[in-house]
Amino acid sequence: MVLRNRRRVAVIGTGIAGKEVYEAAYRVGRLLAERGAIVYTGGLGGVMEAASRGALEAGGLTVGILPGNKVEEANPYVEIPIVTDMGHARNVILIRSVEGVIAVSGGYGTLSEIALALKMWKPVFGLRTWPGIEGVTYVETPEEAVEKLFRLLEGDM
Amino acid sequence: MVLRNRRRVAVIGTGIAGKEVYEAAYRVGRLLAERGAIVYTGGLGGVMEAASRGALEAGGLTVGILPGNKVEEANPYVEIPIVTDMGHARNVILIRSVEGVIAVSGGYGTLSEIALALKMWKPVFGLRTWPGIEGVTYVETPEEAVEKLFRLLEGDM
Amino acid sequence: MVLRNRRRVAVIGTGIAGKEVYEAAYRVGRLLAERGAIVYTGGLGGVMEAASRGALEAGGLTVGILPGNKVEEANPYVEIPIVTDMGHARNVILIRSVEGVIAVSGGYGTLSEIALALKMWKPVFGLRTWPGIEGVTYVETPEEAVEKLFRLLEGDM
Amino acid sequence: MVLRNRRRVAVIGTGIAGKEVYEAAYRVGRLLAERGAIVYTGGLGGVMEAASRGALEAGGLTVGILPGNKVEEANPYVEIPIVTDMGHARNVILIRSVEGVIAVSGGYGTLSEIALALKMWKPVFGLRTWPGIEGVTYVETPEEAVEKLFRLLEGDM
Repeated sequence: MVLRNRRRVAVIGTGIAGKEVYEAAYRVGRLLAERGAIVYTGGLGGVMEAASRGALEAGGLTVGILPGNKVEEANPYVEIPIVTDMGHARNVILIRSVEGVIAVSGGYGTLSEIALALKMWKPVFGLRTWPGIEGVTYVETPEEAVEKLFRLLEGDM
Repeated sequence: MVLRNRRRVAVIGTGIAGKEVYEAAYRVGRLLAERGAIVYTGGLGGVMEAASRGALEAGGLTVGILPGNKVEEANPYVEIPIVTDMGHARNVILIRSVEGVIAVSGGYGTLSEIALALKMWKPVFGLRTWPGIEGVTYVETPEEAVEKLFRLLEGDM
Repeated sequence: MVLRNRRRVAVIGTGIAGKEVYEAAYRVGRLLAERGAIVYTGGLGGVMEAASRGALEAGGLTVGILPGNKVEEANPYVEIPIVTDMGHARNVILIRSVEGVIAVSGGYGTLSEIALALKMWKPVFGLRTWPGIEGVTYVETPEEAVEKLFRLLEGDM
Repeated sequence: MVLRNRRRVAVIGTGIAGKEVYEAAYRVGRLLAERGAIVYTGGLGGVMEAASRGALEAGGLTVGILPGNKVEEANPYVEIPIVTDMGHARNVILIRSVEGVIAVSGGYGTLSEIALALKMWKPVFGLRTWPGIEGVTYVETPEEAVEKLFRLLEGDM
């Protein structure tokens, strides 16, 4: 198992998700893991939990970059906790650590991450998230998000 | 001179400004200093330089929270340099340190700061910046930005 | 595989190691992986590389919390890179993320990490490292370091 | 008033100081301000408060780089608060921002700052602080600390 060559993808989004958003993020996590990607999230609830859960249940590996100073704040599907004690500055580390970003829903925290990703020239795929941001590739389904992201990362786009 | 009770305001925006944007940011800095506020910026060029310059030339105090590891990257109008060596994570410190934010123009970095400010429930006034973001109070002139921000901070709004 | 319940241990030390120090750090990494711990390091060369290599070659999992802004600076044995772009501040994240620390040799950077670990009340085991620091448990061999750390973490001490 | 060319010095040390340590730190702050230096501290109590107070009462300028997310945690003598919300990582920003460091007493947090300063090749003067650290210049009085630091910074050493 050579993790080193695995893709690294962040799934970002709201910390409190309704059923549909939770299921979409779960599906994104699952599809990413099936493709061999390591799934990075902010480690808390909602979309972060759903994506970690999807990835973990598909046999993947999940990293949670936490804002607080206690590992206990991680959701149960985070395998590798990073305890930053840096509040929102952990968003920057999350985005910096990955090759691409999939945003599912989300509030102002997610918007800051989308902006940071675009600032760092990383591809961002948006699913039911902040509309109309130049540079974001908007998609309709988890399948489309993961498919397009991988096509881009593997150079077929 | 009791700086402690002075208002703390961030002026954020593009690092490479055209003449009109530079002048607007300069004017914002100047007006803030005349009101006694300490002007916090990211310490680099464009809007950051213009606002610092306006504040300094009006006898104000300017803080530059720098992304790199060298004090030399500060523009000449930064009086108090903070050398973070933290790249974009310095945006979070900048926003966390102030009571209100005025955005003048700006790209993705500025968008991340606007989002962070709204996430932290800090008032954001936008002048020729990212349109249509819920929570931002859009203004037409430097005077309107500073006037409205102070009215809000002083509780007359 | 439930990584969540695995121990998290940081191995810290010099970035440029001689043969003996490299072998000691390699052995520490190996022993930690054999015990099921996830090995966290600063992700660069010397002791960081040796410990990651030892852990990886024993089938373990390795996390590298990098100071720079490029994943390429990670040594080849880091499986999970965290790209902080925060220079020495990444030391704080490294120490905050783990349950215990083993220091092998090391300069001022290592000293800062030892001090941070003690400040955070985390156990620190020292092998050929900064002498005479109150709070550090000094050991003679990699075996002794790992044995004593696990005894402490598992509550038999 | 050209602050830009003022020296920037950090005073570091214990957060809970006895009378003698408090007075020594107060004196260090006062002497630094009399020489025109901007005094940077971690912004909390003990040595940080004493140095800020000494500097402020001598007409100087004081910067407090705070670990938490509330400006209210600053001691009353901090004029320019920087609210990092980054816990101990603020130590790195403090040291990175200055040209030299004076340590007065101090525990593990101070030790981490001394180590970081030496790692960054910044001069460190130690007064009643961690003994025996290679690279620290140990002094007996506040006067000696400030005198020697300035001689070094101004190139007469």
